[in-house]
Amino acid sequence: MTASSAGSTAGTVARPSGRSPAQMREVRIERGYTHHAEGSVLVSFGETRVLCTASVDNKVPPFLRGKGEGWVTAEYGMLPRATHSRSDREAARGKQGGRTLEIQRLIGRSLRACIDRKLLGERTITLDCDVLQADGGTRTAAITGAYVALVDAVRWLRARKEISRDPIFGAVAAVSVGIYRGVPVIDLDYAEDSDCDTDMNVVMNDGGGFIELQGTAEGHAFRRDELQALTDLAEAGIAELIAKQREALA
Amino acid sequence: MTASSAGSTAGTVARPSGRSPAQMREVRIERGYTHHAEGSVLVSFGETRVLCTASVDNKVPPFLRGKGEGWVTAEYGMLPRATHSRSDREAARGKQGGRTLEIQRLIGRSLRACIDRKLLGERTITLDCDVLQADGGTRTAAITGAYVALVDAVRWLRARKEISRDPIFGAVAAVSVGIYRGVPVIDLDYAEDSDCDTDMNVVMNDGGGFIELQGTAEGHAFRRDELQALTDLAEAGIAELIAKQREALA
Amino acid sequence: MTASSAGSTAGTVARPSGRSPAQMREVRIERGYTHHAEGSVLVSFGETRVLCTASVDNKVPPFLRGKGEGWVTAEYGMLPRATHSRSDREAARGKQGGRTLEIQRLIGRSLRACIDRKLLGERTITLDCDVLQADGGTRTAAITGAYVALVDAVRWLRARKEISRDPIFGAVAAVSVGIYRGVPVIDLDYAEDSDCDTDMNVVMNDGGGFIELQGTAEGHAFRRDELQALTDLAEAGIAELIAKQREALA
Amino acid sequence: MTASSAGSTAGTVARPSGRSPAQMREVRIERGYTHHAEGSVLVSFGETRVLCTASVDNKVPPFLRGKGEGWVTAEYGMLPRATHSRSDREAARGKQGGRTLEIQRLIGRSLRACIDRKLLGERTITLDCDVLQADGGTRTAAITGAYVALVDAVRWLRARKEISRDPIFGAVAAVSVGIYRGVPVIDLDYAEDSDCDTDMNVVMNDGGGFIELQGTAEGHAFRRDELQALTDLAEAGIAELIAKQREALA
Amino acid sequence: MTASSAGSTAGTVARPSGRSPAQMREVRIERGYTHHAEGSVLVSFGETRVLCTASVDNKVPPFLRGKGEGWVTAEYGMLPRATHSRSDREAARGKQGGRTLEIQRLIGRSLRACIDRKLLGERTITLDCDVLQADGGTRTAAITGAYVALVDAVRWLRARKEISRDPIFGAVAAVSVGIYRGVPVIDLDYAEDSDCDTDMNVVMNDGGGFIELQGTAEGHAFRRDELQALTDLAEAGIAELIAKQREALA
Amino acid sequence: MTASSAGSTAGTVARPSGRSPAQMREVRIERGYTHHAEGSVLVSFGETRVLCTASVDNKVPPFLRGKGEGWVTAEYGMLPRATHSRSDREAARGKQGGRTLEIQRLIGRSLRACIDRKLLGERTITLDCDVLQADGGTRTAAITGAYVALVDAVRWLRARKEISRDPIFGAVAAVSVGIYRGVPVIDLDYAEDSDCDTDMNVVMNDGGGFIELQGTAEGHAFRRDELQALTDLAEAGIAELIAKQREALA
Repeated sequence: MTASSAGSTAGTVARPSGRSPAQMREVRIERGYTHHAEGSVLVSFGETRVLCTASVDNKVPPFLRGKGEGWVTAEYGMLPRATHSRSDREAARGKQGGRTLEIQRLIGRSLRACIDRKLLGERTITLDCDVLQADGGTRTAAITGAYVALVDAVRWLRARKEISRDPIFGAVAAVSVGIYRGVPVIDLDYAEDSDCDTDMNVVMNDGGGFIELQGTAEGHAFRRDELQALTDLAEAGIAELIAKQREALA
Repeated sequence: MTASSAGSTAGTVARPSGRSPAQMREVRIERGYTHHAEGSVLVSFGETRVLCTASVDNKVPPFLRGKGEGWVTAEYGMLPRATHSRSDREAARGKQGGRTLEIQRLIGRSLRACIDRKLLGERTITLDCDVLQADGGTRTAAITGAYVALVDAVRWLRARKEISRDPIFGAVAAVSVGIYRGVPVIDLDYAEDSDCDTDMNVVMNDGGGFIELQGTAEGHAFRRDELQALTDLAEAGIAELIAKQREALA
Repeated sequence: MTASSAGSTAGTVARPSGRSPAQMREVRIERGYTHHAEGSVLVSFGETRVLCTASVDNKVPPFLRGKGEGWVTAEYGMLPRATHSRSDREAARGKQGGRTLEIQRLIGRSLRACIDRKLLGERTITLDCDVLQADGGTRTAAITGAYVALVDAVRWLRARKEISRDPIFGAVAAVSVGIYRGVPVIDLDYAEDSDCDTDMNVVMNDGGGFIELQGTAEGHAFRRDELQALTDLAEAGIAELIAKQREALA
Repeated sequence: MTASSAGSTAGTVARPSGRSPAQMREVRIERGYTHHAEGSVLVSFGETRVLCTASVDNKVPPFLRGKGEGWVTAEYGMLPRATHSRSDREAARGKQGGRTLEIQRLIGRSLRACIDRKLLGERTITLDCDVLQADGGTRTAAITGAYVALVDAVRWLRARKEISRDPIFGAVAAVSVGIYRGVPVIDLDYAEDSDCDTDMNVVMNDGGGFIELQGTAEGHAFRRDELQALTDLAEAGIAELIAKQREALA
Repeated sequence: MTASSAGSTAGTVARPSGRSPAQMREVRIERGYTHHAEGSVLVSFGETRVLCTASVDNKVPPFLRGKGEGWVTAEYGMLPRATHSRSDREAARGKQGGRTLEIQRLIGRSLRACIDRKLLGERTITLDCDVLQADGGTRTAAITGAYVALVDAVRWLRARKEISRDPIFGAVAAVSVGIYRGVPVIDLDYAEDSDCDTDMNVVMNDGGGFIELQGTAEGHAFRRDELQALTDLAEAGIAELIAKQREALA
Repeated sequence: MTASSAGSTAGTVARPSGRSPAQMREVRIERGYTHHAEGSVLVSFGETRVLCTASVDNKVPPFLRGKGEGWVTAEYGMLPRATHSRSDREAARGKQGGRTLEIQRLIGRSLRACIDRKLLGERTITLDCDVLQADGGTRTAAITGAYVALVDAVRWLRARKEISRDPIFGAVAAVSVGIYRGVPVIDLDYAEDSDCDTDMNVVMNDGGGFIELQGTAEGHAFRRDELQALTDLAEAGIAELIAKQREALA
């Protein structure tokens, strides 16, 4: 997979995976991975695999009761041995870590950006994103897969005539970009992620608008032109991801 | 799959699945399901799917330090939407429930029954059993799969020459049996489990010995002859499971 | 106290206490031990002493509201210095351990097996079982004592005419059995419990039916004939316990 | 029991119990109530019953390590049905309440006031005070009983020659006083405690010195002369309690 | 500032601050320190600075619902670096310590002693006392400042005509007294507090009545005459504090 | 204060405060606000006031022990009544919320971007940022103030000769920008923040490089040209903030 329009901004670098700077990993989106949830998607960005389920509940959180609006929220988890070395189980430690909370807040906000909550009505859709295997980019894979699970849950509601008009407008997908050894690259795997200068997660919709942009300088601060190159790469990659989502949903 | 020697003790009953009383669900054991863990097994008992990983750590809990013995322990979790309706995420609620703790203690005890902890040396093997989809029998599937993951982790240690003699003796597997509408049946699925009179989880080794036996009368108290019939069924089923384990490990 | 009918199955062994294999410790059941609870029983199995109180509350848990049924539940605790060396106070550690949760779930299930919850009506009876001194067998003593406290609480309700028909059917008691140095023995004390091969907790009713059966192989796996001998011992012991309960309640 | 020297300051009032203002409830101190602890005392102030155990541990908290001093600390708990209506179990709620923490800090400080921690050496004595039945004055009963348990634990250490000189100097006891319907009274039971204007807990030593004085105006603020009358009552009562302690320890 | 009437009871001692025994630190009370709260007061006792806010909420805790009464409660916190060396943040540790709970319970009780809760109506006033800088006496400064914030919140309610009659009767203030190197002194700073024999916190109203009296012997037990000298000092100091409060509220 | 170079990109809009789009609020930086901390700064962005303290500790977290490097970390808190309506105290709720954790992670990362941790040596500097009053932009004010506190703590270390070379390179400051009613504006206050389309927090260094960039579309997704306008505004604003920091540190 090549984010071709972004090719020109990327220099030459030996990526650990042998990919070219604008080349994403193989992306697979498998619907109906488990059977109980209203939407259930296994999404893979290379070796990163995230199970995204969408659960419909006919209740809303207290702050929305009686307002005629719905809610979309997300929870994120990582199986203890999804990673190279085993991490503690958050349920056993008795709390979710800051990274977990930060990611699930990001996923929730991103998905709320493509749904009309009035049309959804007083119900909540919870997107559970559980990482079965991690190799960098779990949050961007989660957003990309959760969108497909969300669409499936909405289709389930529409098939049961619980809602008449489609509350989803546009599509949402996410990808990471970063500066690895001086060169802007897309869809960083773990080897790159742990050794890059700048790491940016970009969430966009199918109209080319930004939903979220979170860039962090791990090493040196990044400049305007680098920001430009990174958003170019992201834009091309997200277009590919949205095409993948459409294909999966067809 | 038919636990034939137990067939005579079982009467006739319409099981929701159409299975005969002594018939287990299709069992699949898939090794190497994820790549980071020293052992990683996806085990399925019909629609019940549990990911069992074995992680090796060169430390032991405080109570064993300096004693020259190893430890084997287990943790159990259920993805929020593994079940018909979504359950709260234990990490978000801030604690593991009583059922979770009870199951993970059972898994740990069961697996410790087939390993010589002196030969293992001062290291811990943690078995993480995470239910991706639940349809009854998650704890018995977990024990059956965790055994295979444990063997893989020990093989990994031996391949690296970290231990010279095999600490594993015998095999361990588990199955549920119960009295459904008056008839002893094996390997209850969710429909049966939630509507049965007696539910018993049996853990045995390949020598036909009992490791754990946990029977609960949900409706009427069970009698001696019923206990006999149930353990007959379990014995036959576990023989089949141990054959499956051998096949997977070959 | 001798479980005579089980005598023949038991071999000869020097039990630390000097008891014969089928001999239980002295059992005492003292009603009205404290004054506020609707039922309050101090039960002793030898040096093991458990205070069991039954508290009536005119509410039911959320999952039962409006269904016209009652609930019986249990909580278990151990005073920090009930044991040989002091254990941490669970309230100070901020959570109940897995063993505690497992035991209180067992007590609750066992007692629910002898009560008609429709006849109880929409109220909850909570059985608090607090171990003042532990010397093995705290959970079986707790179940045996909690039954008496439960009966007292029901009598209190009937005396106040809050319920007209007796919701309790039959009696429930429990005892531990195990294989100590190769010989099946009943009612293990701490010295035996920490050094036995197999440990089994048996809960039965006065009709000779099993309510719960939880056997664990600590050392070698146990065989069919051992299971038979253990349940024989338990059956005789529980008959004695039920006689003790009747005597106390007379 | 009459705190005679204080009689003159007390007026006439119909106490619910029929006691005179300066009359304490019957006090019983039973040593060796349980067998594992180095000191174990059941103390009763009328219907209030508290089990106080003293546990010796050959370690000190981090802030004292290597300083050659010991530590004395206390924990307090109340069985759920020690009270008129059942209170939640703190272990189940996941934390100790403010009242519990406040009381256990008070007990610890009070007992540290009668021990030379240098002479105790680098060991900790933990006083667990668990209320079996509450009828007012649980903290004062706890302090009075814990002193006896502490002496027993120190005697145990001395009998084993672990310490040569007695680290305990003097005795410590506690009693509550209060203004009930305008009259200063001693040793309030629950009926008085929940209906009094001022409530004061007084901890003193056998030299007539104050260790702790905690007075709270529940209704109207109290005046100098009332403070005087209350401390008079307390002084007389504590002298009686210390005599009881001596008798029990003889 | 000199608590002159108490001067005669105080001996001579070199206080670290150079103050005379009956001399309080400079007290400042600054209203309207922050803008959102209904009452917001920065109170300083020398280097000790506490921000006290009063927040009005039109709800009462469950135990008061429907009783036509209001509630006044307090919470206390200390910024991590309010102290000489940084203390852990209680929010990060996941619980409030015993000292914190004890202090906030004291503040709440003290302020409830000057308000007619029937006249307040079914609303809660929460007093948040957060220590910006600690140099001894934080709880007494908190009570003294919280009174002023409470009055401001009540004035706010009356200005909005939410309550017609003033529910506050009298004033409440607090000061610490103690025996430092054998001499009774008032308003101990950190240097004195960590090196004194007896420490007493006194809460009084403007009628000279005691609301709370909490004395602790840190070193030797204190005698009757010392108690007398300490309450004399406190009485004079509190009169000064109440004058300061009036001035601030004018 | 006007971020003049950014003026041309900003349109006309009636900001609630009457400010022009490129106009920041009045910024004040007050050093030495409290006395115990090695660095203590009260920073105000208009009505937003944050107390930032820097505490030096001669230890590092476990993952850095023995590596010869130091650590800089941050904790963030909000006083309960810093906001329009009172929020629950996180210490009382027993955990820090997701927003809190997210912000303190951001502050820590931002400040680590301007310090050479090798030169700092094996010590930790903790930046506590506590919001006394909130009116939008608390995290950007916190970063801006924490930088000054960090410099003060490093100066303290250098004055004591604990470190010889200055580990701080460059300066770090932060500001929020957003699109309010279609117009890019800087330094949003609460009224704007709760009603804007896009909200972006920008952290930059004095070399004009980006440290962090976190943009969120609250309403419509933002476009490339808007991203450009927002970063222009931020760049100008941060230049002003860095000038303010220099002035304060002079």
